[in-house]
Amino acid sequence: MNKFATLHIIDSAYSFPVSEHEIVIRLRTAHGDIQNAYIIYESKYIYGLTQKKAEMVRTYVGETFDYFTIKLKLEDTRLAYVFYLYDGKEYKYYSEDGLTDSYDFTKGFYNFFQYPYINRVDIMPKVEWMSRAVFYQIFVDRFCIGDKDKDFSYVNLKWGDTPTPKSFAGGDLKGIEKRLDYIKGVGASAIYLTPVFKSISNHKYDISDYYLVDEHFGTNEDLKNLVNAVHSKGMRIVLDAVFNHCSENLDKFQDVKKKGKDSKYYDWFIIDGDKPVDDPCNYETFASCTYMPKFNTNNPEVQKYLIDIACFYIREYGIDGWRLDVSDEVSHDFWRAFRKAVKEIREDAVIIGENWHDASNYLRGDQYDSIMNYAFTKACLDFWSTESIDAAGMSGRLNDILVRNTDTVNSMMLNLLDSHDTHRFYSEVGENENKYAAALCLLFMFPGTPCIFYGTEIKIAGGYDPDCRKCMDWDKAYADKDSRIMKLIRTLSEMRHKYDFDNASTIIRSDANNHVVLKIDFANGDKIHLKVDNTGDDIELTVNGGIIEC
Amino acid sequence: MNKFATLHIIDSAYSFPVSEHEIVIRLRTAHGDIQNAYIIYESKYIYGLTQKKAEMVRTYVGETFDYFTIKLKLEDTRLAYVFYLYDGKEYKYYSEDGLTDSYDFTKGFYNFFQYPYINRVDIMPKVEWMSRAVFYQIFVDRFCIGDKDKDFSYVNLKWGDTPTPKSFAGGDLKGIEKRLDYIKGVGASAIYLTPVFKSISNHKYDISDYYLVDEHFGTNEDLKNLVNAVHSKGMRIVLDAVFNHCSENLDKFQDVKKKGKDSKYYDWFIIDGDKPVDDPCNYETFASCTYMPKFNTNNPEVQKYLIDIACFYIREYGIDGWRLDVSDEVSHDFWRAFRKAVKEIREDAVIIGENWHDASNYLRGDQYDSIMNYAFTKACLDFWSTESIDAAGMSGRLNDILVRNTDTVNSMMLNLLDSHDTHRFYSEVGENENKYAAALCLLFMFPGTPCIFYGTEIKIAGGYDPDCRKCMDWDKAYADKDSRIMKLIRTLSEMRHKYDFDNASTIIRSDANNHVVLKIDFANGDKIHLKVDNTGDDIELTVNGGIIEC
Repeated sequence: MNKFATLHIIDSAYSFPVSEHEIVIRLRTAHGDIQNAYIIYESKYIYGLTQKKAEMVRTYVGETFDYFTIKLKLEDTRLAYVFYLYDGKEYKYYSEDGLTDSYDFTKGFYNFFQYPYINRVDIMPKVEWMSRAVFYQIFVDRFCIGDKDKDFSYVNLKWGDTPTPKSFAGGDLKGIEKRLDYIKGVGASAIYLTPVFKSISNHKYDISDYYLVDEHFGTNEDLKNLVNAVHSKGMRIVLDAVFNHCSENLDKFQDVKKKGKDSKYYDWFIIDGDKPVDDPCNYETFASCTYMPKFNTNNPEVQKYLIDIACFYIREYGIDGWRLDVSDEVSHDFWRAFRKAVKEIREDAVIIGENWHDASNYLRGDQYDSIMNYAFTKACLDFWSTESIDAAGMSGRLNDILVRNTDTVNSMMLNLLDSHDTHRFYSEVGENENKYAAALCLLFMFPGTPCIFYGTEIKIAGGYDPDCRKCMDWDKAYADKDSRIMKLIRTLSEMRHKYDFDNASTIIRSDANNHVVLKIDFANGDKIHLKVDNTGDDIELTVNGGIIEC
Repeated sequence: MNKFATLHIIDSAYSFPVSEHEIVIRLRTAHGDIQNAYIIYESKYIYGLTQKKAEMVRTYVGETFDYFTIKLKLEDTRLAYVFYLYDGKEYKYYSEDGLTDSYDFTKGFYNFFQYPYINRVDIMPKVEWMSRAVFYQIFVDRFCIGDKDKDFSYVNLKWGDTPTPKSFAGGDLKGIEKRLDYIKGVGASAIYLTPVFKSISNHKYDISDYYLVDEHFGTNEDLKNLVNAVHSKGMRIVLDAVFNHCSENLDKFQDVKKKGKDSKYYDWFIIDGDKPVDDPCNYETFASCTYMPKFNTNNPEVQKYLIDIACFYIREYGIDGWRLDVSDEVSHDFWRAFRKAVKEIREDAVIIGENWHDASNYLRGDQYDSIMNYAFTKACLDFWSTESIDAAGMSGRLNDILVRNTDTVNSMMLNLLDSHDTHRFYSEVGENENKYAAALCLLFMFPGTPCIFYGTEIKIAGGYDPDCRKCMDWDKAYADKDSRIMKLIRTLSEMRHKYDFDNASTIIRSDANNHVVLKIDFANGDKIHLKVDNTGDDIELTVNGGIIEC
């Protein structure tokens, strides 16, 4: 028995409640090593006297590890347990003291695993609409010009020309409102907008007034109208919260620049000196951008300032949640306070972090609901773009991603192939439509919430920023109404909306012919199967045996 | 290279900041597998272009795993890193994607490990006095009768007779105050009292008035006097917070018993029915004790009620912290609010959970500072009592315990051989004084805060409750002034007070002769070495080479 591989961590993604009387337990073992895994469990107060036994299921299979799972329904939720493992040769117990030949249940209180008690308040609630949504991400300046009467003097890019880092193309909120039927037609039920507040840049990640919609994009009234229009179509809208840093033009930072330590905002930033100087820069910034000073979110005043903003747009504008820019560089302490405040206003406001890496410490129910799932992106790139992993590797990677977090979090993960911060996926796969279609199928069938970047449906190509932020091609968008990819995304979205993915179990494996295979079993008996290879030439998607055209 | 063993988890006990510019990184590998482990790191914003490399040290050695560590001093704390491992045959990289032969640093933003930014507010502060303390735990009813004039009618146990679960021996707060010089003389610098508030039991874990010291133990004035006396001797005092449950006699529960759902306290408890009924019990309790109803700490009113109590005794009585009874069955959400409130009053008030199992999810800086370290207790029992592990097993276990939590938490762990909830350790080792002495040496030299249960110094024997709660034998206590064990505890305590254990590195290994060996290197160059075997016949304790009598 492989003692190195066996892993269980209490009160983690390996052990989490899903209701007041249900808990999911996961156990990691070496791939192929364990034939039968049992959990031996009971209320911890009688565990020394009596125990129940149940066999676990090999649910997740990685290249290195297998993961057995079980969902226990408990009357008394003060759960004690150990594992009992059989590898075909020997039986072993696995407890907090590791693998042992025997186990003394009467001394179990020292070293059993436990979930001490399911407190309702510690059960992470699901944002139901999030886990059922299809997202459409919009980079506002490049999506659509809606207001033909505005002052166009700032626009320096002819719609459709190749953008530079300093290009302004004129997209705005009215443009988005105008295209809501189009977006809904593509299949999306939620939109996520990159920042819309006062800023001199085209991306607006450097905000100088959080309470003012940038004039390039319209007015606060336009934002209100857009939110209302989105809701009237049964859709949702999430905005971008840039709370790690601001623009140097924010009045608070300007005050500090003027008054230095005499400014009451001096402690709002992290400055090594009497006043901020930008060359050499003596204050903390986003990346090395001196025009984006980092907020000192250790400061309770700053926390209040930013949280008030977050609450304001939920309360006054009715937005459905926030995507959190550079959220991993902001403190846990801040996000805990943020969540408390936001969820008090609206429990179903979603909180999506921008963490490119394992974010399990942010996803325990006290901070975010979800993150942008760039680990999924990377797996798709390795399989379809660089081809550095085969189907077994891909299947393994996908399984590994799913065990990073709880089922609850997985159902809300914002899965994506690309964004404003990456190359366009269509370019990454060498504009190979088959690969592109295969990846889209996986994106939509994978547990979580699919998110497509504007123009995905018309195969917009492009490299890294600014090339991935090209203007939306509206002629093509309408001409492509019945193109393969447009139809595919529509079909996949309809499947997401029609089937209850929230109550489905998904098994991901590879087959001998280098296919990744997903088997989705829905609670009501429906079945979706997906088979894709890394050429994309061989896609098979079926619903209850009936073939779906891809 | 053993791919199953390699483990690193970001933002965990494997990766934690200790100051605004220092971070400790740990890496788990298979025992004996890796010869050289390097970390390749840099600010994440330039990681694609340039990297630094540093060799890690094999600090912890378990039976199954080795743990390499390094403390990095960083200018820019936005840390990206991967590991580079050599097992004598091959070199591999270890990143979020696992072990690979090569690593593409230009794509690292997808799969490097990271500590995104050290936010001051996320650095867990050390309670300095805690990490330097020697604790003495007192079960109040059995320690000392101080008030000779009180009403003794409740006392039903002659001092020194064998206690039953229902015995009252008459110990009180004045008795503790009277013995403070004795306690200090034993070497302790802090005392932890089991509960002292209004309760009909001898243990007082069923509290009916949290604002009233139980009349058996004295008055609120006595508590104030005791705290002041403790402080005047330069010592500290921690009380027992029983916040998981109360007594059925608490006025709130009585109100619910009377009025059922019409009581405004109905939601303070967890009741399955119109009113609480105890046979069959329809409300949640501690264990299966119907006289101890569990609080509903999901209820914000209950949270406020309990947190107010905690704050009251810190603010008004000046106590130095709380030990949290059955803390693992109370919600994380509650402990987060509890910590915020308590630490706002006094940052150095210590919070010690009663979690018998891995509590890492409570020890991330947002909930407790410490727990009662029963995993340490269990290791000592396995080595000296049941002899089920040898020195290699013991050394391995001790190392494994240390990697469960961060260095900061380790320095505050309340290490213990026994308590009011276990057999007396002296009985567990068959009243073998050599084993007992060896275990005490380990207890005091192990990283963390040693805690001895009253009477440890005079070798009080006893089985499980009530046998472990015998009356303190004061004749013996003074007669034993120069006994081996009394002197040993005094000596070990003096060493704890004299040497700066907080700034020491401790290496724990086993040798070929079945000894566990501790090498403690202090920052100023001092060295303490301890060698113990499982018979206790062979104890070697030296300070800078000079032998300490044990």
